[in-house]
Amino acid sequence: MEVSWEQSVTDSINAIYLLFSAYLVFVMQLGFAMLCAGSVRAKNAMNIMLTNVVDAVVGSISYYLFGFAFAFGDGSNANPFIGTGFFALKGIPDSTYDYSYFLYQWAFAIAVAGITSGSIAERTQFSAYLVFSFFLTGFVYPIVAHWVWSSSGWLSPTSSNLLFGSGAIDFAGSGVVHLVGGVAGLWGSLIEGPRVGRFDAFGKPVPLRGHNATLVVLGTFLLWFGWFGFNPGSYDKILVAYPNTTDQGNWTGVGRTAVTTTLAGSTAGIVMLFSRRLLVGHWDALDVCNGVLGGFVAITSGCSVVEPWAAIVCGFCAAWVLIGLNILALKLQFDDPLEATQLHGGCGAWGLIFTGLFAKEEFVIEAYNSGVGVRPYGVLLGGGWGLIGSQLIEVLVIFGWVSVTMGPLFCCLHKLRILRISIEEEIAGLDISRHGGYAYVAHPEENHPRFYADYMRAQDQDGDGR
Amino acid sequence: MEVSWEQSVTDSINAIYLLFSAYLVFVMQLGFAMLCAGSVRAKNAMNIMLTNVVDAVVGSISYYLFGFAFAFGDGSNANPFIGTGFFALKGIPDSTYDYSYFLYQWAFAIAVAGITSGSIAERTQFSAYLVFSFFLTGFVYPIVAHWVWSSSGWLSPTSSNLLFGSGAIDFAGSGVVHLVGGVAGLWGSLIEGPRVGRFDAFGKPVPLRGHNATLVVLGTFLLWFGWFGFNPGSYDKILVAYPNTTDQGNWTGVGRTAVTTTLAGSTAGIVMLFSRRLLVGHWDALDVCNGVLGGFVAITSGCSVVEPWAAIVCGFCAAWVLIGLNILALKLQFDDPLEATQLHGGCGAWGLIFTGLFAKEEFVIEAYNSGVGVRPYGVLLGGGWGLIGSQLIEVLVIFGWVSVTMGPLFCCLHKLRILRISIEEEIAGLDISRHGGYAYVAHPEENHPRFYADYMRAQDQDGDGR
Amino acid sequence: MEVSWEQSVTDSINAIYLLFSAYLVFVMQLGFAMLCAGSVRAKNAMNIMLTNVVDAVVGSISYYLFGFAFAFGDGSNANPFIGTGFFALKGIPDSTYDYSYFLYQWAFAIAVAGITSGSIAERTQFSAYLVFSFFLTGFVYPIVAHWVWSSSGWLSPTSSNLLFGSGAIDFAGSGVVHLVGGVAGLWGSLIEGPRVGRFDAFGKPVPLRGHNATLVVLGTFLLWFGWFGFNPGSYDKILVAYPNTTDQGNWTGVGRTAVTTTLAGSTAGIVMLFSRRLLVGHWDALDVCNGVLGGFVAITSGCSVVEPWAAIVCGFCAAWVLIGLNILALKLQFDDPLEATQLHGGCGAWGLIFTGLFAKEEFVIEAYNSGVGVRPYGVLLGGGWGLIGSQLIEVLVIFGWVSVTMGPLFCCLHKLRILRISIEEEIAGLDISRHGGYAYVAHPEENHPRFYADYMRAQDQDGDGR
Repeated sequence: MEVSWEQSVTDSINAIYLLFSAYLVFVMQLGFAMLCAGSVRAKNAMNIMLTNVVDAVVGSISYYLFGFAFAFGDGSNANPFIGTGFFALKGIPDSTYDYSYFLYQWAFAIAVAGITSGSIAERTQFSAYLVFSFFLTGFVYPIVAHWVWSSSGWLSPTSSNLLFGSGAIDFAGSGVVHLVGGVAGLWGSLIEGPRVGRFDAFGKPVPLRGHNATLVVLGTFLLWFGWFGFNPGSYDKILVAYPNTTDQGNWTGVGRTAVTTTLAGSTAGIVMLFSRRLLVGHWDALDVCNGVLGGFVAITSGCSVVEPWAAIVCGFCAAWVLIGLNILALKLQFDDPLEATQLHGGCGAWGLIFTGLFAKEEFVIEAYNSGVGVRPYGVLLGGGWGLIGSQLIEVLVIFGWVSVTMGPLFCCLHKLRILRISIEEEIAGLDISRHGGYAYVAHPEENHPRFYADYMRAQDQDGDGR
Repeated sequence: MEVSWEQSVTDSINAIYLLFSAYLVFVMQLGFAMLCAGSVRAKNAMNIMLTNVVDAVVGSISYYLFGFAFAFGDGSNANPFIGTGFFALKGIPDSTYDYSYFLYQWAFAIAVAGITSGSIAERTQFSAYLVFSFFLTGFVYPIVAHWVWSSSGWLSPTSSNLLFGSGAIDFAGSGVVHLVGGVAGLWGSLIEGPRVGRFDAFGKPVPLRGHNATLVVLGTFLLWFGWFGFNPGSYDKILVAYPNTTDQGNWTGVGRTAVTTTLAGSTAGIVMLFSRRLLVGHWDALDVCNGVLGGFVAITSGCSVVEPWAAIVCGFCAAWVLIGLNILALKLQFDDPLEATQLHGGCGAWGLIFTGLFAKEEFVIEAYNSGVGVRPYGVLLGGGWGLIGSQLIEVLVIFGWVSVTMGPLFCCLHKLRILRISIEEEIAGLDISRHGGYAYVAHPEENHPRFYADYMRAQDQDGDGR
Repeated sequence: MEVSWEQSVTDSINAIYLLFSAYLVFVMQLGFAMLCAGSVRAKNAMNIMLTNVVDAVVGSISYYLFGFAFAFGDGSNANPFIGTGFFALKGIPDSTYDYSYFLYQWAFAIAVAGITSGSIAERTQFSAYLVFSFFLTGFVYPIVAHWVWSSSGWLSPTSSNLLFGSGAIDFAGSGVVHLVGGVAGLWGSLIEGPRVGRFDAFGKPVPLRGHNATLVVLGTFLLWFGWFGFNPGSYDKILVAYPNTTDQGNWTGVGRTAVTTTLAGSTAGIVMLFSRRLLVGHWDALDVCNGVLGGFVAITSGCSVVEPWAAIVCGFCAAWVLIGLNILALKLQFDDPLEATQLHGGCGAWGLIFTGLFAKEEFVIEAYNSGVGVRPYGVLLGGGWGLIGSQLIEVLVIFGWVSVTMGPLFCCLHKLRILRISIEEEIAGLDISRHGGYAYVAHPEENHPRFYADYMRAQDQDGDGR
């Protein structure tokens, strides 16, 4: 009984690929933390950073204990709605899943709550945040992941019983991750209501600018860096040759996925740059950052199955989706401090639809080589209605599922008066009221003579004044 | 028709290597953004970060559409001066280039404009920046890359018609990337002139210190991290065995390249630490950061073909090149806010010359295994004049080419009065005048009673005062 | 004479794995710099960042010249106490060590001084720091590394003459790296004494809060990211199959190590979150960050040889070790600004002991496959006293060795009055007194009319006032 050399090589290559991709996805948690911190006011910076740290540490335990089990625990009695094996990693590694796969999925899971944390920023009680984060990461998200990404899921594009003969293509999770986070954020911010001072007495929006644009740019670049793990990494294995070619395999697809991701984000950023210049009259770095992220969110679903030129179309429209939803949000007096609902929700939904329009047959077969000879692909490329139908179903069921789970949760916390902080606390800021002090300290008092005097006295043990 | 297992393994290993190196090079864009932001005054932080974001997003599209084609589009009718294929990635992947290669080269391309952005910081109109960035990334830089890095380039060390029987060795681009960026910066800052207040009425320099040294250190470390992708990554493939050895291959060279890079940067940093202590009397962290970067820039050309001890020589001299040029710049009242001309231009040129002096025969043959039995190497090691001659030619032609393209462009923008901002704007800062506000917001107004009163009134819908 | 394809593939895979892990470990240097900078007061930020940069650049040269030789220079006359070969990389690469191994070990070496820099922050003369950093990185640390990690070391778990038939298991260095850094920090802060104003005239501690919590969170996440290189990377090679299995090898162990690392850090973070909530009444982000790091430090020794559930136990106890030692430090008026003694020293020691308690037989054999049929493992799992005995010996000898080397060094510097800065300098801050200015600059003077007037006069070359 021995591992063959071929097996060792294959497993090593795929493990390197998946693990380092997981590390990149983990960097996105840092990216979110910096983006969020920079986008809120200084008085709440500590709070929002803590929520991002907590997403990671609480998510580790909940995903280890049961989240991964709900998502990928297929076992013998596979279930299209919820996984039932691998609790606390019991049975891992097996022939399908290794520890590295768990780690990669863990990095995805903790990102979801990070998205929503932006929507409910600057006004949420920390204990409510803990409840919400635990519930979302450990239960609501894993269920959706099971539907779409587990081979026994009812929406999966690799199951034995494909919805509309196709299943939904959500390669790295425009829907599973971003739309889930965005819809949760929608209900959270709706139920909490706008921040104090966000709209004046006449309903006119008052800009509550984030305290540090450098952190926003830092966060955006880190998210971009991490997205190279998120999208190309979602192939899971790189050493898979494509049939009917002489030199292509997942290594080709992985590179193309990195390119489509880059082009979509860049296009959305450029559109945002010029459109905001026209709309508001200046060149706004923060809008460009959000535009880039919107492009990434949108391409995340179809990144592996579209041509580079289509990625440009994807990013172009994503920017307009974001611009439109932001205008709508202001009209409706909807206050999402990070625009997470619009960005992750709106562009995520657009991404799913985009994939239904532009997925290329050849790439779909390569990425989802499920033994199906012919399968639906992008409707605009002549691939029929099966794929776009599945994509629309995914949008709808995610909206529905997250609404019926997170909506009541937020309502419940709201009724119990433990969701939102008091107005006084909100005006003072969360950091001073709940987290022991501000994130930034200036220490003018240290130059005060009293310190020096105290110190000299303390040193002067014999009391002779020397 | 099927991919052999050996081919799959080789392609997967090389793709992992090149893609993750590309991701690291991309991090350098973030490094530049942080370094630049910290080195300018707070009032221009938003502006310079936007230029770095714009370099990336505009560069993605221009490099996709034609930049990569100009650089590597050899096709059947190879041209020593400019590439003519692969526009909008048409024809990619082929037997030579895959998507991952494009991504790696894209990450290099966007870095060039990032270098120059430092030279013209704090006083350039954003619309002029857009023009300059597009032209440099999409045209000027790719042409140089073609000359040196494409196998059909006239300066290439792997072409069938080697200049002086050698061709220039610019492994990761001391010349192609850094000297190009530095010369562009030279003309930009010369034509724009010094910032308001940089030299007083008597021509004495007035320090205009950057606003945040933490960002400078953050940027420097991120650039160091990224340089591990930039230099070792430039092997493109790691799975290439060396002939005449029993256990060495590119995997050996890659490791040695990481070591030479580290040693050169570290030596330059140490020299800068002590020399500045002697010259100005204090231990200056920012000078050490610049020293480290100068060492990296210099070793970038020869990193793969010199021994570790030579890398120490390289870094030692690079620090003195930088110190000397900085003194000269002050004498000439030349104002480059990031010292990019001196650092990337000066140390880049030194790096090319250094390679001509110290390249080791064995390593040159291993790195540029072009079937040539005997080839020139470092003149100090007895390798003849062919290599150092080619290196000097590269310095001269890059200086010439960038001067005749970027010089007129900057002049033209200057004559049209769209290059530099007005003095009033410069004193107020670019962020408030062009970008909608400062990067940092303190929000004292929010604690103002009016907000609270407004809010209470807005909530009090029945007007009963409760 | 040619490299076989199998050899090429194996070497390439392992080189990719080790190099990219080394790059991640290098990121920890940036993480430490940001963590330290954020945890000190603004007036000392430049100083502490410079120490972190200097650890890297000075460490590069000293580790290249002799540090690596002391640690791994076995040669023919192997010595259990100190290595004697490979000075200035002479003889590298050989059949055992390649350049990439040097780079990986270099990244570890520079981290040690970074740990101690936190303990002596805000009050140490920079020239003394240079001496200390050079001595610790170049001599004290490499000796310990030799004992435990070189196959000829007397504490090594892979030597031919195992201590207690076991040798100490310190996989990635809870002891070799963290305990060494922590004990050095203990003596440094003891001998320097507390910062001015840290304890008032009645011995009551006065909080001297760090100036920027965002940097602390940034540093913590970067350290987490880097720890994925530190712990899983310590396998050195990923392509090693395990005997008696059909599909497992180091690729399995590597993934499990990433998982145990994550779980230990997360658990410690959660424990810290709730325990601090109970103890001090608020949710403290910075404590959670320190908790996470404490969990990482503790698991670093046993990460590869314990089950995921045991990692949770490890992290749980690590948090309490840290909490307890912090309370003790306050009682004893011990002032370590970064809690490095408690965190790296205390949790590092706990980590060594934990491994002696919970190491699993199967994993020990896989990770240290030294031809020994039966070997001791965790005493709580029935593995006998050999391992825990070796672990305790490692704790004791590290404490002893570092104490007899660093203690006298710090004492000596103290007696020569070059260790600690003067009280006046301490109150003013190191940055302004020794490093040429503060890290942060506001520039109100630039908006001053004088600048504008000067500039206009300078431009007005013909003196006509226009």
